[in-house]
Amino acid sequence: MSSKKFLSEVWLQDSSYPGRRSPNSMDHLSLEKTVTGYAARDSSGFLSPFTYALRQTRPEDVLIRVLYCGICHTDIHQAKNHLGMSKYPMVPGHEVTGEVVEVGSDVTRFRIGDTVGAGVIIGCCRECGPCKSNIEQYCNKRIWSYNDVYTDGRPTQGGFSSLMIVDQKFVVKIPTGLAAEQAAPLLCAGLTVYSPLKHFGLMKEGLRGGIVGLGGVGHMGVKMAKAMGHHVTVISSSDKKRAEAIDHLGADVYLVSSDEASMSSAAESLDYIIDTVPVFHPLEPYLQLLKVDGQIIMMGVINQPLQFITPMIMLGRKSISGSFIGSMSEVEEMLEFCEKKGLSSTIEIVKLDQINEALQRLERNDVRYRFVVDVAGSELDA
Amino acid sequence: MSSKKFLSEVWLQDSSYPGRRSPNSMDHLSLEKTVTGYAARDSSGFLSPFTYALRQTRPEDVLIRVLYCGICHTDIHQAKNHLGMSKYPMVPGHEVTGEVVEVGSDVTRFRIGDTVGAGVIIGCCRECGPCKSNIEQYCNKRIWSYNDVYTDGRPTQGGFSSLMIVDQKFVVKIPTGLAAEQAAPLLCAGLTVYSPLKHFGLMKEGLRGGIVGLGGVGHMGVKMAKAMGHHVTVISSSDKKRAEAIDHLGADVYLVSSDEASMSSAAESLDYIIDTVPVFHPLEPYLQLLKVDGQIIMMGVINQPLQFITPMIMLGRKSISGSFIGSMSEVEEMLEFCEKKGLSSTIEIVKLDQINEALQRLERNDVRYRFVVDVAGSELDA
Repeated sequence: MSSKKFLSEVWLQDSSYPGRRSPNSMDHLSLEKTVTGYAARDSSGFLSPFTYALRQTRPEDVLIRVLYCGICHTDIHQAKNHLGMSKYPMVPGHEVTGEVVEVGSDVTRFRIGDTVGAGVIIGCCRECGPCKSNIEQYCNKRIWSYNDVYTDGRPTQGGFSSLMIVDQKFVVKIPTGLAAEQAAPLLCAGLTVYSPLKHFGLMKEGLRGGIVGLGGVGHMGVKMAKAMGHHVTVISSSDKKRAEAIDHLGADVYLVSSDEASMSSAAESLDYIIDTVPVFHPLEPYLQLLKVDGQIIMMGVINQPLQFITPMIMLGRKSISGSFIGSMSEVEEMLEFCEKKGLSSTIEIVKLDQINEALQRLERNDVRYRFVVDVAGSELDA
Repeated sequence: MSSKKFLSEVWLQDSSYPGRRSPNSMDHLSLEKTVTGYAARDSSGFLSPFTYALRQTRPEDVLIRVLYCGICHTDIHQAKNHLGMSKYPMVPGHEVTGEVVEVGSDVTRFRIGDTVGAGVIIGCCRECGPCKSNIEQYCNKRIWSYNDVYTDGRPTQGGFSSLMIVDQKFVVKIPTGLAAEQAAPLLCAGLTVYSPLKHFGLMKEGLRGGIVGLGGVGHMGVKMAKAMGHHVTVISSSDKKRAEAIDHLGADVYLVSSDEASMSSAAESLDYIIDTVPVFHPLEPYLQLLKVDGQIIMMGVINQPLQFITPMIMLGRKSISGSFIGSMSEVEEMLEFCEKKGLSSTIEIVKLDQINEALQRLERNDVRYRFVVDVAGSELDA
């Protein structure tokens, strides 16, 4: 509600909105562009080519030719209207890397030809506590990169598209040591794991961490934690991913959560747990794994209530925390960290005409570990 | 289980246990003393005079003539066997202030005549992580001041007694500026609130805090938080304590949790909440009151599961933490803090022959805010 009110207020003041521009201010900027993306038209979530207009480039805008875009579980939820808030046509995609093809007059940090990225958030109020503290992901007026309304009143459209236009505040440079296709999943999955490790003081060497759930976010959790010098335990509901976790991702220990003897012998052994599972599960087995002052950080959106009894957190001063993606300054740090540590995401590249099959496979967790769409290679505008 | 094992191991090595003492080591120490306390004999929880022997004073021991002892809700749970772990006869009481009447040969920090205090914990393993980090309250082998077994194999007995004997590690000096009857409730209720405020970085001026529940711990929460320079909101289930909270305790705001309009207008206004309510209650109304990065700290033992949905903590990076009394070094700090700030507990003094009536009144929350037993004035040994 307050978000809508905010948007209408900005709209009224916004001289760049068509028909409201002052006579001379925008003349140096390019005109609107027609672009083609893959859009969902209804809650079937089926994506098909869709042509729409991008706003003309404003002073703070960066126009990006999309190279790659990762596929996140959230894309399925949005495309299929699982949250009841979807508006169609909707071009999903929020793990975008691309090449700068045009910049607004006030853009100082990017030049044409730069490889850049854009993620989940592309706008915020810039006035609230979180915005002033540079944690704009917690701004209540944040604007999502798609399925939202931009300050000019138009729908936002995501990265499964030939072009994307983003305010420079929400654009990040991809370090030269990172391949664009590798960097794409870092912009959501990687950041989602990096941010709480940083914020909650867990970037110290020698910690013992646990990762619950081995999907797009969880696999980055193992890699990040190992790169930080941690001893990493993967906790899973079955034995299926043991070899993968140990041999491919480099985890130190693999625990099956239903194996009470193993879980019990690992009691009070972990400094932290990153819980990426997005469906209901008991917390008690994980709280027991934490040392005194240990913390479990929840990253999966679960609308069915989770439960705990207070002695489980009191006797050990344990914390149950939540975290949501990360800030723009953390994106920069995280990309530098990944470049320095030679850390990459494990991806499977598909073209846009395979995207519906990829979404179906993701829905049944049949991906190792992240699909990335080769958007530029899909010859959308051909 | 491991605690019992530990105790038997210590017992075997303990040369001061009668019959095992080495020929000369203990000769300078006094003999066993016969003392009278008020003990529960069964789960009726009714307390009556009980005479028992105190161990002889060992090198690290401090013998305390009890002056005052606060009555905590836990005393009711223990005396009535609510936790199913009570052993009788049991002398409760864990908020003890008194006068040193004898010290062991290795006691350096206390002298005869000092006013000292003892609290909930009187022993720990001294070898585990928490012990080495000086947070011995989280040692899994901690020894409770009553209803436990000491290292010599005898039952521990609490402060509703003429004398108490405590290892010097678990004795604290009461600052001269604090009256002994005032200091007693600080040793559990006061510490329980002070410790998390310190540990979770909440001793900064200007924070906005919330206190849920206005009993022995909650009232100290309001006073401590005000003394730290916080803006304090008391949140209660009814309007009954409004005048008390504002006029007597100095709270800034009083919210009734069922008043949705007031609760809603206070959304995202608090940096922290201290939740002292020891029975099931919903968490959602309180999580909504927290700012981004806000934390709710649970202090009531609630064995019925509490619930939350993950978006409530993810969107705002909020934490649900628990805390359990505090460390010996925090007791010292806390007492100094209270002396410096002129902060006292609000108490009602009773004699030991009134203790059963006091326990009944406490059980129906009919006390403003803590009963303190005038043990020395009860002429127990007369």
